[in-house]
Amino acid sequence: PATKLPKVGTTIFTVMSQMAAEYKAINLSQGFPDFDGPKNLLGSVGQYISQGANQYAPMTGIPALREEIAKKVAMLYGKTVSPETEVTVTSGATEALFAAIAAVVRRDDEVIIFDPAYDSYEPAIELNGGVAVHLQLHAPAFRIDWQQLKDAITPKTRMIIINTPHNPTGSILSAEDLEQLAALVRDTDILLLGDEVYEHIVFDGHQHHSLLSHPELYQRSFVVSSFGKTYHTTGWKIGYCVAPAVLSVELRKVHQYLTFSTSTPMQFALADIMREQPSHYHELPAFYQQKRDLFNSLLAPGKFSFTPAEGTYFQLVDYSAISELNDVEFCQWLIKEVGVAAIPVSVFCNTNPEMKLIRFCFAKGDETLRNAAARLIAI
Amino acid sequence: PATKLPKVGTTIFTVMSQMAAEYKAINLSQGFPDFDGPKNLLGSVGQYISQGANQYAPMTGIPALREEIAKKVAMLYGKTVSPETEVTVTSGATEALFAAIAAVVRRDDEVIIFDPAYDSYEPAIELNGGVAVHLQLHAPAFRIDWQQLKDAITPKTRMIIINTPHNPTGSILSAEDLEQLAALVRDTDILLLGDEVYEHIVFDGHQHHSLLSHPELYQRSFVVSSFGKTYHTTGWKIGYCVAPAVLSVELRKVHQYLTFSTSTPMQFALADIMREQPSHYHELPAFYQQKRDLFNSLLAPGKFSFTPAEGTYFQLVDYSAISELNDVEFCQWLIKEVGVAAIPVSVFCNTNPEMKLIRFCFAKGDETLRNAAARLIAI
Ligand SMILES: CSCCC(=O)C(=O)O
Ligand SMILES: CSCCC(=O)C(=O)O
Repeated sequence: PATKLPKVGTTIFTVMSQMAAEYKAINLSQGFPDFDGPKNLLGSVGQYISQGANQYAPMTGIPALREEIAKKVAMLYGKTVSPETEVTVTSGATEALFAAIAAVVRRDDEVIIFDPAYDSYEPAIELNGGVAVHLQLHAPAFRIDWQQLKDAITPKTRMIIINTPHNPTGSILSAEDLEQLAALVRDTDILLLGDEVYEHIVFDGHQHHSLLSHPELYQRSFVVSSFGKTYHTTGWKIGYCVAPAVLSVELRKVHQYLTFSTSTPMQFALADIMREQPSHYHELPAFYQQKRDLFNSLLAPGKFSFTPAEGTYFQLVDYSAISELNDVEFCQWLIKEVGVAAIPVSVFCNTNPEMKLIRFCFAKGDETLRNAAARLIAI
Repeated sequence: PATKLPKVGTTIFTVMSQMAAEYKAINLSQGFPDFDGPKNLLGSVGQYISQGANQYAPMTGIPALREEIAKKVAMLYGKTVSPETEVTVTSGATEALFAAIAAVVRRDDEVIIFDPAYDSYEPAIELNGGVAVHLQLHAPAFRIDWQQLKDAITPKTRMIIINTPHNPTGSILSAEDLEQLAALVRDTDILLLGDEVYEHIVFDGHQHHSLLSHPELYQRSFVVSSFGKTYHTTGWKIGYCVAPAVLSVELRKVHQYLTFSTSTPMQFALADIMREQPSHYHELPAFYQQKRDLFNSLLAPGKFSFTPAEGTYFQLVDYSAISELNDVEFCQWLIKEVGVAAIPVSVFCNTNPEMKLIRFCFAKGDETLRNAAARLIAI
C-alpha cells in the first residue's frame, strides 16, 4: 500500500542544514546553538559514565531528575507537582509531544493547531488517526484569535496544542491569554498540549506564562519542555512532560513502548546542574536577548523588515522588499547566493502564508551573527 | 474517554526491578548487565562531549555510525546495504520497533507475533490501529510451527514479527527456518520485522541467522538491533534499523517525528568502537556462554528444570517441581522469600502458558550468579 504519511518529506531542518553544509553557508536554519552548555554539566556526563551509570534508567526518568523538575516547576510557576506521578522524562521534547498525542488522540479526533505550527504536530496527529485543524496566527503579532478558536471547537475537538514561546514567530502568550483559554475550555473535555520548550528564553522583561502556572488549565494539560534548549545541548535529546497523574498514566503507557527510557548518565548530569545552578534560568533571557539585539541591530540597515521576537531563539523577517520568490525559493537563493541558511515559514503552514517570511536562528556566537548579518545587509 | 491501552499496565520490567530493590533481592529480572562496557567506549563519550559534539545529530544518525553498521552487516551477513538509504539510528531498539510498526501498519491490519512475545509488540500494534495475532511457541524447544503460521495468514496480514535470538526463550532461528519463512511469504505483500537485538549472543557454536543474510527476505524486512545489548550499555538507549530504501523512507518519516535523532556524543563513541574493535562480536558469544554455563551448572543440583538457552542472556526455567503458584505469584514469592527476582513468562503471553516458566537474566557478574544460584538451589 501507499505511504501512511503522504504529505511528509524529509523535515525542512534536515534539508536546510544539509544544503547549508553543501554550500558552506552560515547555518541560521535548524534551531541549535553553535556554543556549548555549562562546563560542569558537560564534564559530569563522563564522570557518571565512568562510575557505571550505563544501564536502563527507570522508565519514568531517574528520581533525582524528576525531583529537580518538580522543584523548578514549584519555583518558577508556583505549582506543586508530584515527581512520582506527574513528571516523565522523555527522549527529547519531540518524543513527549508524540507520546502525549498518541496517548489520548483517537481515530477522527480533532486537534487544533496554530499555523505557523511546528512541523511534528500534524504527522503525529495523523499517525494516531486524528485530524489536524489549522487556525492561522496573523502577522505581525501572531496572537491567538480567541473568537476564531471558539468557532473552531466542535464535539470532536480532543486537544488544542499551545506553543509558547512560539516557534517560529517568537510570540508569547500573556496571562490574559491563559484566562481566555480557560474560559473557552471550561465546560468541555478538551485537553491541552503545551509545547513550552523555549520557556526560559523570553525578552524585554516579558514573562513566560506556562500552563503550569494556571491550576485550572493544568488539570487538562500535558506540558512539554526540553533540556536541549535550556542547556545548549540539543544533541542529547532529553526532554520531559509534566501532566496530572491521570494524564501521565496514559502518557507513560505510550512512552514505555516508544523508547522506554532515556540516557541514564545524562539524566544524572542534568539533575546535578538543575540542583546546583537554579540561577541558570534567570540568566538565559539576558544571554539570548543580547544575541537577538545584536543580530537585529546589525540587520536593521538592510532590507528585511521585522518585529523583534518576544521569545525563543528565532527571529522572523519579512523579505518582500528584496524578492518576489516564494519563501522556499528565497531560502535556496539565500544559501547559494548570499551564504546564509534560514527556514521558510511556509513549511510550518497548511495554506500559503500571507506574507513573505523566513526564520533565522540567532543561537550563535556573536562572530557568526556578525558575519551572517554582514552578508544579509549587503543584499 | 477511557484509556487507549486498556490492557497495558506498568511493564513487568519496571515492576520487578522496583520490587527487587524494595526487598533487596538479587535482580535477575529486567535484562541488563551489572558490568560495564569496553573502557575505551565509555571514555570516548566524555571526549566527544568536551569536543562539542552536543548538538542535533542528523535525523538518520551520524554518517560514521551508519557506515560502521553497514560494514558490520556486510562482514557478518554478507549483505551490502547503503548507509545513506538503508540504515537509521534510533533511540533504542524499542523506538525502532515502534517506528517500523507505525510506518506500515494501518487500521485493522493483522500483525502476527509469537508468544511468548516481547511486551512492546502488542501495544505498538494496537496504538497504530492494528490487531496482534498471537501464535504459540511450544516448550521446550520454542520453535515456530510453519504450518500453523501458514494457516494464520489472511489477506489482512501486514507483518510478521520474527524475534531471533528469542527473548525470553533463548531459541534461535535456523537457516532452514529462514527458507520456510521465505517460501511462506513469497507470493504475498507481507512485511517482516526482525527483532535481532541479541544477534551477537549465541551459544554452542550456533549461528545467528539474520533476515539480513537472506536477500529475498531482506527485501521485505525491517531488521532491528541494539547497541545496549552488544556493548553492555542498555542505559544509553541507542539502536538501529536496517531496511531496504523503500521501507527505510517510511520508517524515517515516523522516526523524524517520534524522536528526530539520538544522542550525538554516544553515536560518535559507538562508531569508533565498531571501527576499532570488530573482534568484539566474536568475543561476545564466549563471554556470555561462560555465564550461561556457570549459572546453569550451579542451578543443576536444584529443583528447576531447563534446557540451556541457545542465545540471548536469558535462561528460562520450569519451576513446577517447586510450586503450584502461578508464575507471577511465584516470582513475588521468589523475591520475598528467596531473594532473587525473575520475570514470569505469562506476561509475554496472550493466553495462559502451558508450563510454569520464569526467566532469569544471567548478564551478571559471576559472584552475583553464584549468590543467586546458592539461594535458588536451597529452595
Ligand atoms: C528537531 S530539529 C528542529 C529544531 C527546531 O526545533 C527548529 O529548528 O525549529
Ligand atoms: C526495556 S527494559 C526490558 C529489557 C529487556 O529487554 C528484557 O528484560 O527483556
